[in-house]
Amino acid sequence: MSYTSLVEHFEQLHHLQHLGAICGWDQATMMPPGGNEARAEALGTLAVLCHRQLQDDRLPDWFAAAGEEALTPEQGVSLHEMRRAWRDANMLPADLVRARSLAGSRCEHAWRSLRPANDWAGFLPLFEEVLNLSRQAAAARADTLGLSRYDSLLEQYEPGMRGAELDRLFGGLRGWLPDLIRQVQDKQRHEQVLVPEGPFPTAQQKALGLEVMTMLGFDFNHGRLDVSVHPFCGGVSEDVRLTTRYDEQDVTQALMGIIHETGHARYEQGLPAAWCRLPVGQARSMGVHESQSLFFEMQLARHPAFLARLAPLLERHFGTQPAFAPDNLARLYTRVEPGFIRVDADEVSYPAHIMLRYEIERDLIEGRMEARELPERWDQLMRQYLGLSTQGNDRDGCLQDIHWTDGSFGYFPSYTLGAIYAAQQAAAMERQLGPLARLIEADLPAIFGWLQQHIWQEASLQDTAGLLTAATGQALDPAPFRSHLEQRYLA
Amino acid sequence: MSYTSLVEHFEQLHHLQHLGAICGWDQATMMPPGGNEARAEALGTLAVLCHRQLQDDRLPDWFAAAGEEALTPEQGVSLHEMRRAWRDANMLPADLVRARSLAGSRCEHAWRSLRPANDWAGFLPLFEEVLNLSRQAAAARADTLGLSRYDSLLEQYEPGMRGAELDRLFGGLRGWLPDLIRQVQDKQRHEQVLVPEGPFPTAQQKALGLEVMTMLGFDFNHGRLDVSVHPFCGGVSEDVRLTTRYDEQDVTQALMGIIHETGHARYEQGLPAAWCRLPVGQARSMGVHESQSLFFEMQLARHPAFLARLAPLLERHFGTQPAFAPDNLARLYTRVEPGFIRVDADEVSYPAHIMLRYEIERDLIEGRMEARELPERWDQLMRQYLGLSTQGNDRDGCLQDIHWTDGSFGYFPSYTLGAIYAAQQAAAMERQLGPLARLIEADLPAIFGWLQQHIWQEASLQDTAGLLTAATGQALDPAPFRSHLEQRYLA
Repeated sequence: MSYTSLVEHFEQLHHLQHLGAICGWDQATMMPPGGNEARAEALGTLAVLCHRQLQDDRLPDWFAAAGEEALTPEQGVSLHEMRRAWRDANMLPADLVRARSLAGSRCEHAWRSLRPANDWAGFLPLFEEVLNLSRQAAAARADTLGLSRYDSLLEQYEPGMRGAELDRLFGGLRGWLPDLIRQVQDKQRHEQVLVPEGPFPTAQQKALGLEVMTMLGFDFNHGRLDVSVHPFCGGVSEDVRLTTRYDEQDVTQALMGIIHETGHARYEQGLPAAWCRLPVGQARSMGVHESQSLFFEMQLARHPAFLARLAPLLERHFGTQPAFAPDNLARLYTRVEPGFIRVDADEVSYPAHIMLRYEIERDLIEGRMEARELPERWDQLMRQYLGLSTQGNDRDGCLQDIHWTDGSFGYFPSYTLGAIYAAQQAAAMERQLGPLARLIEADLPAIFGWLQQHIWQEASLQDTAGLLTAATGQALDPAPFRSHLEQRYLA
Repeated sequence: MSYTSLVEHFEQLHHLQHLGAICGWDQATMMPPGGNEARAEALGTLAVLCHRQLQDDRLPDWFAAAGEEALTPEQGVSLHEMRRAWRDANMLPADLVRARSLAGSRCEHAWRSLRPANDWAGFLPLFEEVLNLSRQAAAARADTLGLSRYDSLLEQYEPGMRGAELDRLFGGLRGWLPDLIRQVQDKQRHEQVLVPEGPFPTAQQKALGLEVMTMLGFDFNHGRLDVSVHPFCGGVSEDVRLTTRYDEQDVTQALMGIIHETGHARYEQGLPAAWCRLPVGQARSMGVHESQSLFFEMQLARHPAFLARLAPLLERHFGTQPAFAPDNLARLYTRVEPGFIRVDADEVSYPAHIMLRYEIERDLIEGRMEARELPERWDQLMRQYLGLSTQGNDRDGCLQDIHWTDGSFGYFPSYTLGAIYAAQQAAAMERQLGPLARLIEADLPAIFGWLQQHIWQEASLQDTAGLLTAATGQALDPAPFRSHLEQRYLA
């Protein structure tokens, strides 16, 4: 059976990706610096092999024949997802793939020193090359997929999502978010917030982190916690590798970082074992993945009821201090302060950072804007959305993110889609199971059970819209997100 | 150029092996238990890919054409070593490879419970199957290589070594070793040896281990130290992963284990960077590899001058106690006590364990002995060489090693060849650089420099005999080994 041949072929690909995921994790957590060159080459060879696996000559015939075979509905979806992965890997001419990868590496590498030097002029020619090749890639993908150029890139990260829908979504947000940010700032202006006083020894922070991961249901038989410069959730679903970094002066960051990554990790650990080596058994999309980390971090962990549970743990590990009082923790973890840097942004101003990037990357890819106009446009939108100017400060403006340096246009919307999906999930959960506060206090497993049933075990068996509608009874809808923000920050 | 194509092809193979080495290390040191099944499958897929890389259809033509190309002498050796790797991977029919691997896994798996149960009868049929298939493999290899059956297996681990030479070598040892063991025992009978009293906390043992590794020149920019149940030296030469295990009641084992593995590690780290991704840039043989670990452990670390340097480190980490006196450490680390178990054996009785295994495996493979005769023959040789009977105690007799369970016949001689090579190297070094005692006291780098120049950087650029002769001025010669033992244990 051709379907069986495809399954074997894609399982093999998954095994190769497993080796890459573990060696990538090792590179970030364990590898001594001198091992980097050899590792980079080994992973490069693996990437070529994985790509070659998706370009196997036999695949077209297998796909054609498998389409005629009697498959269960789930096998049909699985076939569809294998075909999607295959199509994605074969859409671009090899020359363009190589040129893009080369230009991306070069630009990303230079960016690492140009950003701290605030050197936009030095960055521009490299970025123009990346943009140029990304536009070509978008054009080629658009032709094959019958989509607009930007949509054809978006499709890589959030299949089924379209620019038109994002325009509506972000257009709506633009109407209320900047106002909301100002209102929250007004409300918080006279709030007193105590910052916990350190030091917080790394070993204690790790012990606390492990305890909180256990409380959040992380399965240590299928995963572990380590340290890396840039925290991530990697590995494979049978062996999830989660990382964080510790600052001995600040316990709040690592703790929330661990909780965020634990959301990603539980999604991975909850994927259906029967499908976990095939495309259909993978996480649905970047946005859905982010919805799980943001569910854990925003809906759950910054909830006053959860912070009330964290308070005694903090005291047990670090001793009593006024800053650990539940009320203070709630104020601390919901502080809204618009700033320049996306990754440091609070829950309320974060979407503004994304709206801005979305508008710019869409226009860059569609050819409605040129690379050289970027700093000015960035500054203008930052002033509009967050009241901050980045003029002459590109380091903290349009040079701050890694994403565009290697051509990952179309990724940014995932972050805010994730926040919106998470709010919809929380609202649906409350309708079905009762108030989140009560669940957090008395029945965390019910929360995880709901996510397991509606999100995790569904993997890619439905498209994102279907998944969301089945789980929450609604198509994509920013209303629960808005209510959540108003309720948490203005009530 | 075909030679260039071969280089690219074998470098690619090396990259795949790199991924396997790191994921294998991870499996033994970091992986949570629940990740094992997926890891085993991923590594299985990789093994198939590596094997396929060596069966590429283009290889025969490339080898033929490269033989006609103008190559430097070193490229010529490199070509020879690539051809050897290729020949080795293509010598056996695929059916036999599969059957052997299957029977080996089954036997090894069963052995893990049959050995503790002392169940020879349960082990025999599984072992007979492994032996049968290993004999077939030996016959096929012998045909291709024009060697005897046993020699064709030996060739995998110690290229160039022959059974006839081992017969001479072990025949000689048989003449003086059992006597030497008895003499040493007589001499040591009334010696007083103090055993260091614990506990020795793991963290302290690790700190001491790292300090000793540093003293031994281990490059932590290209390697690290971790914990595994079975200590090993893995990774790749650019990133050597060394492991140990700690017993909080006993500091002597882990410390010497770390030193032993550091010998393997420095060999790997000292391999020539220019060749390190090709067969010619790999360690010469199992025996030469073992010669480096045994040089570090036996020639160096158990030398009274080295133990005198260890004593203050032990005291610094664990406080003063009489057992840490240099004289006592020297007695402790040179104690000779013939026992049942090879891996626990001292330097003097160890070769007896190897001679016994060599005679048996040679006869098993050559068809001069059957599997069912193993326990009796084992018992007979143990009584002859070490004065101990294993009758009815196969758990501590012929069931003790993992090697034969998966058909690794021909490996055991490497251990004693390593000890003999190491003694030759030490003798040559003393002739050239002066007494080892003085070098240990005042100039460890000179020792490592000698090994770097004569062994490490030579990789596989010469055959073992050539390497040994160039380094020591002598062909294989057990005399320095005998002198070393007599000098250390009887003087």
